[in-house]
Amino acid sequence: MSTQAPGRAPRLVMKFGGTSVADLDRIRNAAMRVKREVEKGYDVTVVVSAMAGETNKLVEFVRNASRPEGANHPGLFDSREYDAVVAAGEQVTSGLMALTLQEMGVPARSWMGWQVPVRTTDAHGAARITEIETTNLERKFGEGLHAVIAGFQGIAPDGRITTLGRGGSDTTAVAFAAALGAERCDIYTDVDGVYTTDPRIEPKARKLDRIAYEEMLELASLGAKVLQTRSVELAMRYKVRLQVLSSFEDVPGTLVCDEEEIMEQNVVSGIAYSRDEAKVTLVKVPDRPGIAASIFGPLARSGVNVDMIVQNIGADGMTDMTFSLGKDEIAKATAALEGEKAAIGWTDIVIDDTVAKVSVVGIGMRSHAGVASKMFNALAADGVNIKVITTSEIKVSVLIDRRYLELAVRSLHAAFGLEQEPAA
Amino acid sequence: MSTQAPGRAPRLVMKFGGTSVADLDRIRNAAMRVKREVEKGYDVTVVVSAMAGETNKLVEFVRNASRPEGANHPGLFDSREYDAVVAAGEQVTSGLMALTLQEMGVPARSWMGWQVPVRTTDAHGAARITEIETTNLERKFGEGLHAVIAGFQGIAPDGRITTLGRGGSDTTAVAFAAALGAERCDIYTDVDGVYTTDPRIEPKARKLDRIAYEEMLELASLGAKVLQTRSVELAMRYKVRLQVLSSFEDVPGTLVCDEEEIMEQNVVSGIAYSRDEAKVTLVKVPDRPGIAASIFGPLARSGVNVDMIVQNIGADGMTDMTFSLGKDEIAKATAALEGEKAAIGWTDIVIDDTVAKVSVVGIGMRSHAGVASKMFNALAADGVNIKVITTSEIKVSVLIDRRYLELAVRSLHAAFGLEQEPAA
Repeated sequence: MSTQAPGRAPRLVMKFGGTSVADLDRIRNAAMRVKREVEKGYDVTVVVSAMAGETNKLVEFVRNASRPEGANHPGLFDSREYDAVVAAGEQVTSGLMALTLQEMGVPARSWMGWQVPVRTTDAHGAARITEIETTNLERKFGEGLHAVIAGFQGIAPDGRITTLGRGGSDTTAVAFAAALGAERCDIYTDVDGVYTTDPRIEPKARKLDRIAYEEMLELASLGAKVLQTRSVELAMRYKVRLQVLSSFEDVPGTLVCDEEEIMEQNVVSGIAYSRDEAKVTLVKVPDRPGIAASIFGPLARSGVNVDMIVQNIGADGMTDMTFSLGKDEIAKATAALEGEKAAIGWTDIVIDDTVAKVSVVGIGMRSHAGVASKMFNALAADGVNIKVITTSEIKVSVLIDRRYLELAVRSLHAAFGLEQEPAA
Repeated sequence: MSTQAPGRAPRLVMKFGGTSVADLDRIRNAAMRVKREVEKGYDVTVVVSAMAGETNKLVEFVRNASRPEGANHPGLFDSREYDAVVAAGEQVTSGLMALTLQEMGVPARSWMGWQVPVRTTDAHGAARITEIETTNLERKFGEGLHAVIAGFQGIAPDGRITTLGRGGSDTTAVAFAAALGAERCDIYTDVDGVYTTDPRIEPKARKLDRIAYEEMLELASLGAKVLQTRSVELAMRYKVRLQVLSSFEDVPGTLVCDEEEIMEQNVVSGIAYSRDEAKVTLVKVPDRPGIAASIFGPLARSGVNVDMIVQNIGADGMTDMTFSLGKDEIAKATAALEGEKAAIGWTDIVIDDTVAKVSVVGIGMRSHAGVASKMFNALAADGVNIKVITTSEIKVSVLIDRRYLELAVRSLHAAFGLEQEPAA
């Protein structure tokens, strides 16, 4: 995909997260990488997070300022003020990055969200970008001035500062790459790419050269915390080529891109897992229309994120309803269900908080049958019992006993040959 | 002076310096004072500095980010980026103050300089306010919403963040008081008012109820560091009644106001001093037109602040030229003069770096003769030799041997009866 308009320099967006700009030495290290790209001829847009720890410090200030006198817990607070306070973190880093680049001889200036402007909705604390006006930025490119953007922030229709939610700087970076027609959006972080699975569990895990947007989305939401999910969705929608790479090592990263750009592809790209899951079974609920809504409505209103759902077909007009959720949401979920016991009509709640989820992910599944059965066979061969199964077009997930998690990950990694480079 | 327009609530500006908002407890303490004024019926505009130590930390970041690799000293830096970084300090405090007020039941919102907007010149790092647009603020007053302003900052004509220079939050406060027609501008700080002299030298020093703008200006520039000089100038020009008072004690402060508001007034209001002065004498310079310019021109260009100047009329077409300056500027001054030795034509430079300056200040001098001679008599009675004298309409300053500084201050404090309340 070529995005370069005639007569202008190619553009690159480079995003540095909190650990990559944690102090002035690291900012200098990041600036060196920017300089290298500038010397290749790019007009560079740098997007920076707050220095590591700074956002947490500011959030803590907000929570404590909002705590009623004598109370142990913070009260409700005005999210517009939260945004004003927290956005100061990125403001500082953007100025420091611009100064560091200047000191290295790279002409650069900082831009706060409101200066660009980065227009957002007024959903303070979790705003969405609605428009990035790039005219000013592009005029400055014409003057040879590279841009340093305070990530994570924008301006609401009423002129107040907004933030995009935790991890929002990834989204800022992708949105700028889309708006500027950048050749690539490089996300510098403390890992050097996306792996076939967690190398702490399977040392044979292999770094992927390329991964499709859809796969990355499944991996991100399954707990491989490399990129914020929203930023991947945005990249997929605008076909922004996203590269994940290390701020600290000079090694190639992983390119997240359209599947058409991926020539060599295993059927399965990676094994994801989520350790602290729980399984809840409502025993003997009436098997009638609307029963699912009567269960999952109250859970959603209580803010419980239900993941997998399985309904067993029962006899006598009764059925068992099983679902999974994060282990730390059990109390909230049971409270919500107890409150609706009469309306739902179950006889018992059975909770298993000793489960974990393992998933195989790959766009290759679309054209290859037998992935699920290969997965089940591999787990059976190692004596791993499967408790719940769900599937999507590019993913098969199973809930298993947590004790078998590492074994299962390694077993599946081997079964799908992930330690091997894919054949062309 | 009444500044209240018909049909609206009276307005008050309350400014809290860095030590008054140094942590969340102090912000809460300051907010309590705001609440008290709100309950009296004022529309309050709070102006806040950065939390104590925060500005220094940010300035240090800027200096280090601008230091060339391996160098010991910071390089030149882009003052626009300096402003963007440093202004983040007040941004944080303004949000936290608004949150704290809200928690106490006082409706309030934060305003950054660019949001108001506070328009300034583009002299980054030392910008001057050119206009404050109060329309938005006043509309919010109409909705019962009090304002918390991030002090010290504004927006340049090109839309970039500016700062007003150290201590600039005082100036922000006075400018808002003028623009809003506030009844008073209260400057909360870590001292409880303006004293007749430094209480650490003369324990009988008395807090002044009122002091005229002109007197405060002389005291401020003479080293009584209660208020930034520019803020007093601005208050005088716009007749803003300025009250200096303590954030930590509930005692009346000192009102800085028009002299017409001061009914009871000693001839002398206070004794100021400056400890680390030096006296430089150029011996035998030609007594010809332009000689002063040939000496003080090069000094000014070298950034030396010359204070008192005395020229002795000499014989043989020769004269001695004496001036005073801060002790730490001696090296810079002598270097500048040595470079011009041929052009000026002196024979010798005599430097005395063991002197201090003592001044008596009072608008009452305008109508009372004999202040200077009373001062000289008091010093003579205590055996203090006077080296240089200068006078202005409301001030007499003398340079003396530094060893006699404390003695001289106490002696003058007694001679002018400053421990006594003035008679009506």
